[in-house]
Amino acid sequence: MSQPQESLKVRHSDKSLVFADLTPEEYKSVRDYMWAQKELKISHSLLAKPSENYLFLIDLSLPKKADVLRYLDFNGSKPARYASVVVFYGERRYLKEYVVGPLPGPLLHHDVTKEKYNTTELPFTARTVTIGEYAQLFTLLNEVFQKLQDPLRESFGYIPKKRELLPFEGMPRGIKDGDRKTWISFFRDYSGMYIHPVGFEILINHESSNATNWTVDKLLYNGQYFNTINEFLTTYKAGRLKKITFKEIPNYASLKPKNKPSGLGPQQYYLQGKRYSVKNNQVIYLEWSFAFGLSSLTGMRVFDIRFRGERIAYELSVQEAMSVYGSITPGMILTKFLDSSIGIGRFAHELVRGIDCPYAATYVDTYRYIDTNVTQRFRNSICVFEHDIGRPLRRHFSDFFHNGFGGMANSALVFRTITAIGNYDYVWDFIFYQSGSVEARVHATGYITSSFKDDGNLKYGHQVAENVLGNIHTHFINFKVDLDILGVRNIFQTKDMVYEEVPLPWMPSEKAKIPQLVENQLKTEKEAALLHSAKTPRYLHIASDKTNRWGHNRSYRLQVVSFAGDHLPESESTEKSMSWARYKVAITKHKDNEQTSSSLYSQNYMWSPFVDFSKYIEDDEAIVNEDLVAWVTAGFLHIPHAEDIPNTVTVGNGGGVILRPHNYFDEDPSIHSPDGMYFSPG
Amino acid sequence: MSQPQESLKVRHSDKSLVFADLTPEEYKSVRDYMWAQKELKISHSLLAKPSENYLFLIDLSLPKKADVLRYLDFNGSKPARYASVVVFYGERRYLKEYVVGPLPGPLLHHDVTKEKYNTTELPFTARTVTIGEYAQLFTLLNEVFQKLQDPLRESFGYIPKKRELLPFEGMPRGIKDGDRKTWISFFRDYSGMYIHPVGFEILINHESSNATNWTVDKLLYNGQYFNTINEFLTTYKAGRLKKITFKEIPNYASLKPKNKPSGLGPQQYYLQGKRYSVKNNQVIYLEWSFAFGLSSLTGMRVFDIRFRGERIAYELSVQEAMSVYGSITPGMILTKFLDSSIGIGRFAHELVRGIDCPYAATYVDTYRYIDTNVTQRFRNSICVFEHDIGRPLRRHFSDFFHNGFGGMANSALVFRTITAIGNYDYVWDFIFYQSGSVEARVHATGYITSSFKDDGNLKYGHQVAENVLGNIHTHFINFKVDLDILGVRNIFQTKDMVYEEVPLPWMPSEKAKIPQLVENQLKTEKEAALLHSAKTPRYLHIASDKTNRWGHNRSYRLQVVSFAGDHLPESESTEKSMSWARYKVAITKHKDNEQTSSSLYSQNYMWSPFVDFSKYIEDDEAIVNEDLVAWVTAGFLHIPHAEDIPNTVTVGNGGGVILRPHNYFDEDPSIHSPDGMYFSPG
Ligand SMILES: [Ca+2]
Ligand SMILES: [Ca+2]
Ligand SMILES: [Ca+2]
Ligand SMILES: [Ca+2]
Ligand SMILES: [Cu+2]
Ligand SMILES: [Cu+2]
Repeated sequence: MSQPQESLKVRHSDKSLVFADLTPEEYKSVRDYMWAQKELKISHSLLAKPSENYLFLIDLSLPKKADVLRYLDFNGSKPARYASVVVFYGERRYLKEYVVGPLPGPLLHHDVTKEKYNTTELPFTARTVTIGEYAQLFTLLNEVFQKLQDPLRESFGYIPKKRELLPFEGMPRGIKDGDRKTWISFFRDYSGMYIHPVGFEILINHESSNATNWTVDKLLYNGQYFNTINEFLTTYKAGRLKKITFKEIPNYASLKPKNKPSGLGPQQYYLQGKRYSVKNNQVIYLEWSFAFGLSSLTGMRVFDIRFRGERIAYELSVQEAMSVYGSITPGMILTKFLDSSIGIGRFAHELVRGIDCPYAATYVDTYRYIDTNVTQRFRNSICVFEHDIGRPLRRHFSDFFHNGFGGMANSALVFRTITAIGNYDYVWDFIFYQSGSVEARVHATGYITSSFKDDGNLKYGHQVAENVLGNIHTHFINFKVDLDILGVRNIFQTKDMVYEEVPLPWMPSEKAKIPQLVENQLKTEKEAALLHSAKTPRYLHIASDKTNRWGHNRSYRLQVVSFAGDHLPESESTEKSMSWARYKVAITKHKDNEQTSSSLYSQNYMWSPFVDFSKYIEDDEAIVNEDLVAWVTAGFLHIPHAEDIPNTVTVGNGGGVILRPHNYFDEDPSIHSPDGMYFSPG
Repeated sequence: MSQPQESLKVRHSDKSLVFADLTPEEYKSVRDYMWAQKELKISHSLLAKPSENYLFLIDLSLPKKADVLRYLDFNGSKPARYASVVVFYGERRYLKEYVVGPLPGPLLHHDVTKEKYNTTELPFTARTVTIGEYAQLFTLLNEVFQKLQDPLRESFGYIPKKRELLPFEGMPRGIKDGDRKTWISFFRDYSGMYIHPVGFEILINHESSNATNWTVDKLLYNGQYFNTINEFLTTYKAGRLKKITFKEIPNYASLKPKNKPSGLGPQQYYLQGKRYSVKNNQVIYLEWSFAFGLSSLTGMRVFDIRFRGERIAYELSVQEAMSVYGSITPGMILTKFLDSSIGIGRFAHELVRGIDCPYAATYVDTYRYIDTNVTQRFRNSICVFEHDIGRPLRRHFSDFFHNGFGGMANSALVFRTITAIGNYDYVWDFIFYQSGSVEARVHATGYITSSFKDDGNLKYGHQVAENVLGNIHTHFINFKVDLDILGVRNIFQTKDMVYEEVPLPWMPSEKAKIPQLVENQLKTEKEAALLHSAKTPRYLHIASDKTNRWGHNRSYRLQVVSFAGDHLPESESTEKSMSWARYKVAITKHKDNEQTSSSLYSQNYMWSPFVDFSKYIEDDEAIVNEDLVAWVTAGFLHIPHAEDIPNTVTVGNGGGVILRPHNYFDEDPSIHSPDGMYFSPG
């Protein structure tokens, strides 16, 4: 019963494979090729040290849009497949990016660092911390703990190998280019450690590629700073500080239900077989079709979104998830997380049936090669399902003049991944409605991060457990929305209302203020960069100059749903690394080399980022009859409260954008849906 | 299998009946009592003329809150039941309101007009148009049509009894107190007439209680105005106007599906019996309980909302649905609909299984007495169901330090009515989540209203069909949210963020801008009246002075979800009748005589309304440790587009408010849910 309906399967096309993630075989052949380049001297070790050369990432290199369109629309040849490869050269203290291909081979590699980032080599400290570097950091921490065993035991119940202290890093790692000085705060050895801070933090300088040069530069104990381990030890032993005394506490972070399961909630079933089909990386659902993929860095993305065979969007993708925290503690005071620098898609783990997605959903495996030495399979890490939204898509009841009822349930297709990046879990949804709308939605759940309730910290949040402060923070999420409305040549229109005083036509002596439609076209990138702080027209449209039957520009409207806090002031030195968050919506002219709004290097080189989104706009290009891309930012301000313990709930904690047809069609396409129902009396 | 679980049923209490709508027997006994009052001379006719005395409405008179609380919380006696009765005195040209009771009798009536409206009698033209008045209006229209038969046939295909022209009224009915001059525009005799305007409108003066005095004051034909029927006829016959020629067109307003049903969408089932129970007017759902009712005027409402036995809110209710239109045509240029003046709950019709609500939902009948002479039963007009929202309520996955997964599906209870008020259908939802949140949501669907595409009308919307303009309009919805957080004495708090520059504690020479929490208490009604146009703090809380375990005020947060357009300028003469719409949120001190934000008389007496919400605030009372009521306005700007044909879809067309616990509990209560799940490896 839960098989796709046969009629759907025949509609699949292999052309979607042009967007497909690399296969396990492709990852392997690229890895082996890179390893075989003797002059690159790439380590084969999973735990390669920072001083070694490390193949950090292999991911699909997206083909150029023009090539893809030629292939999809004009029977052009299939664009060759290439991998994007990132190597961290510890021996040379720089980073490089390559394109390797064509797949399946014979392969060649081509250094694209200059082309992509306008620098021949990327600075070494711009790199993500690898598991090899973490291994060395843990070794260092163990040495520190050994020296501090007594205070750590007395204060936090530390027992090596038995009751550890778990680390959590603050970011950025310093205050200027080249810094790699990380504040690590420590948490109880519990599941859900993130809400068990103990009040102890240390600052580690790990700039050197040689771990023997790493140093502990500061310590914080119960609100008091120390310059060295010895200074802390001496003060502690002399009793010249306010000691924390270890106390056993129950694990309030536990997710174990406190009551026994007593019933089962409502479950959804497909009575007549699934109305969608997934083959390769393509989904067919009623009138919809799209290709999909999962970038290890930016997360889930879909391409070539078509409704009734007509392309609506070339790409809809997650770009970045960012948070800015407030705290008095050093581990969090500067913290600004840019998740794509560690990898959003990287953390798309197995989805749990019946909780993360319905039991009957279709689950898809993904394969990745990031911070590893072997391709990893992530079972059931994407789910696809049709869902009854639980509210009619449309309906009308009439009991006068003409009696009758017409309507339909709102069944929509959901495409989902969930990425658990440390403490937080983001639920990513692309939802395809039968009315021709697509929604991109993200909800946050998982653990908040927290800090010890030092004096003065209550300015930065609420206490949520004993000695624990839930720190105020923002969530900003960026989506790339490359709508192509009847081809790639589009314009950007806005619509809104204004009250205009007019005389009443049949009684001109009387005047009244009447709402009028105000339409506008924004013609350059700077005009179309809509700041959060500015009043934004209520309707934003990517439109074709072609008109529908009634003479209006065919368009899709972007309806942003956001409860965002304030963006970091532009005067801050780290702001350029997240300049996409200035704008609720920004429209740029499409460029293959402006693929993402953020980059792998933004987190650890925040002060001089290699991708500064605002630069895409700075040249203020014309956006009239050009290929337009909308970059949409949604989010919410999070003031943690007791109910964030143990986990933040998704209700109300999300944001996104709905892409809605607006004079794109001549009428609502759902009138053709097989779910439509009509009856009149007798 | 779809029976409620037995354990739920025993938790019901009959105390909810204090909020119950009147029963058929109660309606009848109140009607019969009123009819028996000879001196009132009330007509028994369903079609009572405006010149007669007419018992327009019988509805529950809500007991005073203090009496109810004594009854619910302190074993006080049960408040007596009273009916609220509205009589339109055609013979005396005024309106009066009574309270009739106690039920079941012996009954007495008491004139409350002065007490409620500060006037001994309400002006006659403030009344809703009754079906008796409509009957006379139709008679008049028929006479007019008879005179205009030739032009109407030639222009619009009018054939008496066979192909009629259907009327649609503009409101308000005039431009000043006492006016009852209604522009009626005409539409094709099709289902979904609202999007078939023909370009013909007439202005009828029906101020007199005697229909023989009614007059046709203006006519509009194809953009041209005429003072009299004869003037129009003469001009028409002489060919001195631009004629419209009748053309058969297909009914693009038809809701008949254009394709055959080919499949069935996903359906929800309760595998282990329903986890909610409905008895009398009470719903029990997991930790939730509430009483419910349906006011004929204001629509659905719930009372005594409790979570884990503790009252969260005394009342959550729909108050008003308002729209302001723009047009060049007289039938719509001034139009501002205030739905509670015709009755929102009045139009809560039967819900269609599988479309309006899931098949397996529980359906409840309601009974009403409005604009009738006999109690009417509305079968299955409320539905209650548990719904899988389709996205986890919370979840966390961890694969380092401690491996494990905990989470739960988001199953929530939905309480729903749908009101089809003429063209529009509003889907009203109150949603109860297992995390202790309650959401009030409205979505719009049904037909837009439209006007003929006269010259200059494109300033007011888009063309959506041949010669048809979909007129720009606003939707504003008002909810009453009487939260009682640990009793009735509450305060109003706001929270937000601000960036403050601070020195880094371990390196004071360096400064950074850090987000801080800003808390505020608003202490008077004027301070707490938050205009749409003003910057509103992001978090709004009704709080107790009692604190949770961590020392923070226990509170519920109001998260407003709105895409509203601009509110009518206050300078407009009709604005006072909708002054509630000025505010995103306004907080008032609870008063039994400030029961609603609008009134039955607001639509037809807009210029001097008998309820002007802004007056509730004008006395600027203190709101510190008082019983607070939040009045929340949500809505959206609607620029109709082709996809509104035939019906507006609900996706993106809604608004509402989420009531969220914020330090109300010591932790997320869903950790006690039977739906929680946890597993760790091995
Ligand atoms: Ca540019
Ligand atoms: Ca585009
Ligand atoms: Ca007041
Ligand atoms: Ca209250
Ligand atoms: Cu958060
Ligand atoms: Cu509308």
